[in-house]
Amino acid sequence: MPTLSALLADHLDGRVAIAETIAASYARHRAHGDAAIFISLRPEAEVLSEAQRLQAEGPRGRKLWGVPVAVKDNIDVAGLATTAACPAFAYTPTEDASAVARLRAQGAIIIGKTNLDQFATGLNGTRSPYGVPRNALRADLVPGGSSSGSASAVAAGIVPVALGTDTAGSGRVPAGLQNLVGLKPSLGLVPTAGVVPACRTLDCVSVFALTTDDAFAVLEVIAGPDISDPFSRPVPLGRPGAIAPQFKLGIPGPADLDFDGDAGAAQSFALAVERARSLGATIVPLDMTPFYDTARLLYDGPWVAERFLAIRGLLARDPDAILPVIRQVIAGKPLPDAADAFAARYKLAELALAAKAALNGIDAMMVPTAPRPVTLAQMAADPIGQNSMLGRYTNFVNLLDMCALAVPVSLTEGGTAAGVTFIAPSGHDAALAGLGRAFHAASGLTLGATGTHAPALAARPIAPAPGTFEIAVVGAHLSGMPLNGELAALGASFLRATTTTADYRLFALPGGPPARPGLVRVAPGQGAAIALEVWALPAEGFGRFVAGIPSPLGIGTLALADGTRVKGFLCEAIATEGARDVTDYGGWRAYVSAQVSAA
Amino acid sequence: MPTLSALLADHLDGRVAIAETIAASYARHRAHGDAAIFISLRPEAEVLSEAQRLQAEGPRGRKLWGVPVAVKDNIDVAGLATTAACPAFAYTPTEDASAVARLRAQGAIIIGKTNLDQFATGLNGTRSPYGVPRNALRADLVPGGSSSGSASAVAAGIVPVALGTDTAGSGRVPAGLQNLVGLKPSLGLVPTAGVVPACRTLDCVSVFALTTDDAFAVLEVIAGPDISDPFSRPVPLGRPGAIAPQFKLGIPGPADLDFDGDAGAAQSFALAVERARSLGATIVPLDMTPFYDTARLLYDGPWVAERFLAIRGLLARDPDAILPVIRQVIAGKPLPDAADAFAARYKLAELALAAKAALNGIDAMMVPTAPRPVTLAQMAADPIGQNSMLGRYTNFVNLLDMCALAVPVSLTEGGTAAGVTFIAPSGHDAALAGLGRAFHAASGLTLGATGTHAPALAARPIAPAPGTFEIAVVGAHLSGMPLNGELAALGASFLRATTTTADYRLFALPGGPPARPGLVRVAPGQGAAIALEVWALPAEGFGRFVAGIPSPLGIGTLALADGTRVKGFLCEAIATEGARDVTDYGGWRAYVSAQVSAA
Repeated sequence: MPTLSALLADHLDGRVAIAETIAASYARHRAHGDAAIFISLRPEAEVLSEAQRLQAEGPRGRKLWGVPVAVKDNIDVAGLATTAACPAFAYTPTEDASAVARLRAQGAIIIGKTNLDQFATGLNGTRSPYGVPRNALRADLVPGGSSSGSASAVAAGIVPVALGTDTAGSGRVPAGLQNLVGLKPSLGLVPTAGVVPACRTLDCVSVFALTTDDAFAVLEVIAGPDISDPFSRPVPLGRPGAIAPQFKLGIPGPADLDFDGDAGAAQSFALAVERARSLGATIVPLDMTPFYDTARLLYDGPWVAERFLAIRGLLARDPDAILPVIRQVIAGKPLPDAADAFAARYKLAELALAAKAALNGIDAMMVPTAPRPVTLAQMAADPIGQNSMLGRYTNFVNLLDMCALAVPVSLTEGGTAAGVTFIAPSGHDAALAGLGRAFHAASGLTLGATGTHAPALAARPIAPAPGTFEIAVVGAHLSGMPLNGELAALGASFLRATTTTADYRLFALPGGPPARPGLVRVAPGQGAAIALEVWALPAEGFGRFVAGIPSPLGIGTLALADGTRVKGFLCEAIATEGARDVTDYGGWRAYVSAQVSAA
Repeated sequence: MPTLSALLADHLDGRVAIAETIAASYARHRAHGDAAIFISLRPEAEVLSEAQRLQAEGPRGRKLWGVPVAVKDNIDVAGLATTAACPAFAYTPTEDASAVARLRAQGAIIIGKTNLDQFATGLNGTRSPYGVPRNALRADLVPGGSSSGSASAVAAGIVPVALGTDTAGSGRVPAGLQNLVGLKPSLGLVPTAGVVPACRTLDCVSVFALTTDDAFAVLEVIAGPDISDPFSRPVPLGRPGAIAPQFKLGIPGPADLDFDGDAGAAQSFALAVERARSLGATIVPLDMTPFYDTARLLYDGPWVAERFLAIRGLLARDPDAILPVIRQVIAGKPLPDAADAFAARYKLAELALAAKAALNGIDAMMVPTAPRPVTLAQMAADPIGQNSMLGRYTNFVNLLDMCALAVPVSLTEGGTAAGVTFIAPSGHDAALAGLGRAFHAASGLTLGATGTHAPALAARPIAPAPGTFEIAVVGAHLSGMPLNGELAALGASFLRATTTTADYRLFALPGGPPARPGLVRVAPGQGAAIALEVWALPAEGFGRFVAGIPSPLGIGTLALADGTRVKGFLCEAIATEGARDVTDYGGWRAYVSAQVSAA
């Protein structure tokens, strides 16, 4: 199975029919021969009919037209049982979960529901009555969980992308153990309506993919507020860009790094640090205390009561229907009381403050996704201890309202994978994707267990930092021009030099000093590409900057040659009447130089 | 004691020395003869020394130079005992609470600590071992609580302003019962560092004052993030403006209005509705179900565990040191467990969604501050029931993350007060103040129990406040139009309605919803005056607002009929080609109305 982006291009160009893709997906599933990946797999004939219907409809601009997707079996797909890996819990929903409905609306084809650690409680993938999905890289290793089946389905090349969930690492650990990208969005960015709760206040729908670009393409489809989900929030998404100059990447300090004795894993992380440095990141060691203290709070604190709430009916009615290890985790201790619950909330608020302080000046964190791989034998010998170990670098993320992206680092000759997870505060999903895509591409790794390489990475412009806004300047604010200092004084940073699309005209306005141009959009074919610079300003500086712009100039939206649309200088058309048209110079700098030369 | 603004003017102009103000404050306290107002009152001589020192220093731009302030005795003032109205709980802090430190930094003089319902648990003011502060209007009525002493001190004219706290109405009910303004800020806007917790996730520091302008002046001093308080949040504050045209005020529908049988209170509310209407507000009846369901959640739900947490040491050590009624409320029932606590949090999230839906298109709510006054005898006969009744219209506000402003409506001949509370989502504090100041001024009431009238209300601000920027809106952001809420959410306040000069044309742009106009400046004599509204936005909000404006709209400089030039919406001229010219309607509102009428 190729990547999502390659597959979509094949469908759109007509090189591959959607039915061929579906047939290939089912054929790959048969060839792979792992009956534990899917809890329910739709009949191939039924899915082929859906493929033919989609094919007949044509793409209609749909972003996932004909892409087969697997969905973790704690996320509702209308007409398929939702089991959460517990047969006694199963029900058959009549509606799709919001995220699934959004996938389908963009032309995705859900082929089945994947295995998981029961009630999404676990990070290893062995806690299911439906068997243990094979780690597609090496059969003696655990697949990782709780989204085990989704990860194995992508790693094995059965589907290019799959949905998981992530409360404490379930969307990251399996990615780390199977050489995949695992995207854990900001809390509330993707609705959880139609998801069996683990901890409702912490649950996220996550994405497994072969590449970061594929994962982000799915995120763009499933993200956005949902009126039916009280935990849905408006979170700005943005788009992944190139790694900014001076990017600061925090990593655990030496005392806070622990690979549970695995020298190979330690080497892989050292390699990751070197790779990040070679991409221009400045590495900053962090004191991980507030993060690890938060992780401890997750299982020692009251949040287990959320898991209890989600299944308390079943626990009372038929406790033996639940796996002993899950019962032990969820109901093995008396519930804390409400005072303890609030005390933990206060403690978390204080830890969040400390974490924020630790991250001051840091653009993102990089941690190992898991300390080391775990064999099935190790897991069986110590089911709680090995599971806890796997969550060392994941448990704190959702509690601290952060987003995360797990990305491969290396594959050993023996076939074990090592990965890192990039982590940043809520709303930085696109920034992490920008980092992750460059980092992954630099690895040169094959994808999942497919043995294939990623298509060449498309270059991206540097994106503005979260909380900042792009502004295109065309005249006296250009670098080296008289008003450029105003930008710096307001906290601006330079992003890129480019031009408008060929739909603008530039005029030398009367007045000054300083002499200023006026840019006006004109009818298609009537203009030219005008040189400009894009800068990023924080919101307040942006406000002050705009408030200070004199008539007849103002700020509108410019279409740029690099395909982006940014805020930037425009001039009232009426003010350019009688002004000298300097469009042919291609930009203000060239015009000014010509005047100086002529003088 | 005059109002804060009058007092400050007196100090700055040198008409009154600060020491005279302090002496007057103490004299008034003696004359009033209510020993239950203060739990600790600083010695007059000591405070006079402080006054002389402040006088000698000069104002230095301080916004509360020489203003005497009383502070509720659950808020730390360095060197004075904090009792929370429980002698056994008392401690003497060495540092001021953040809000108090901010008052002092602006030249305020803290004269003492005021009585309260023990541990701020109550809305009536009778639950204190330090006696019951008199209702300054009528001695047979309860003063209201829990901020009883702060309210009585202001109503009696001992201080012009006082700090209270508000978790479920403690900053509003006493204002309603004593003819005062009670300002309950947005959660997290004023730090609660140094405040004895009631419910830490819901507690606010509140302000009592004789006028809205005074209360807001204090809010401006104490507001702002505090790194030492994990519950502190950045909330845009803005400045109070005039009431916007088409202002929509939601009131409880007839079935949801309850005055507990008090016909006079019902008449007062009817009067308030008429007053709001006469000020230009459109009255919209609301279904209060989600609000009342939320209120029930507060005391039936787990939040009482927060009160328990705050005093659990004392409860274990010396339960008899706590008043029986407080013990009954806080520890009378077994604590719910953590699962119940999370279940209530989920329920609250759902109710918040329902409340948001109920408030769609509404600028603010208006409710009675309390159903009716309560006599001391009624209170003694039914201490729990009467207290619950008092909280009918206040309990839901903090849980739903809303801000509130209690304002007087009327005084009967018998001396009882009736008030209303304006309520809006978090961040609308300034908008409520703009409403409250006009509403209160229209009442013509005397202030508190002072018998004096307010100085004439300063004309509504025409120029934007320092640090804010004017923006002229001409289309979907006008009051009552679909995007108007975006302005409020960014901290905007309405300044004025006017028109452009006669040099503009207005076009109905294709696209939407929402339908949007495009304004373009044209050659002199070719245009008309177009109706618009000028709003003020803080710099950051202004930046975010501009960054979100879609092509072909942008922000330039508009010339207005009132001779001012402000930033405002303009459209790229090229985008108006082929669009319908609606200039003759004189504005977007008139054009939209004509379309609706025609349909």
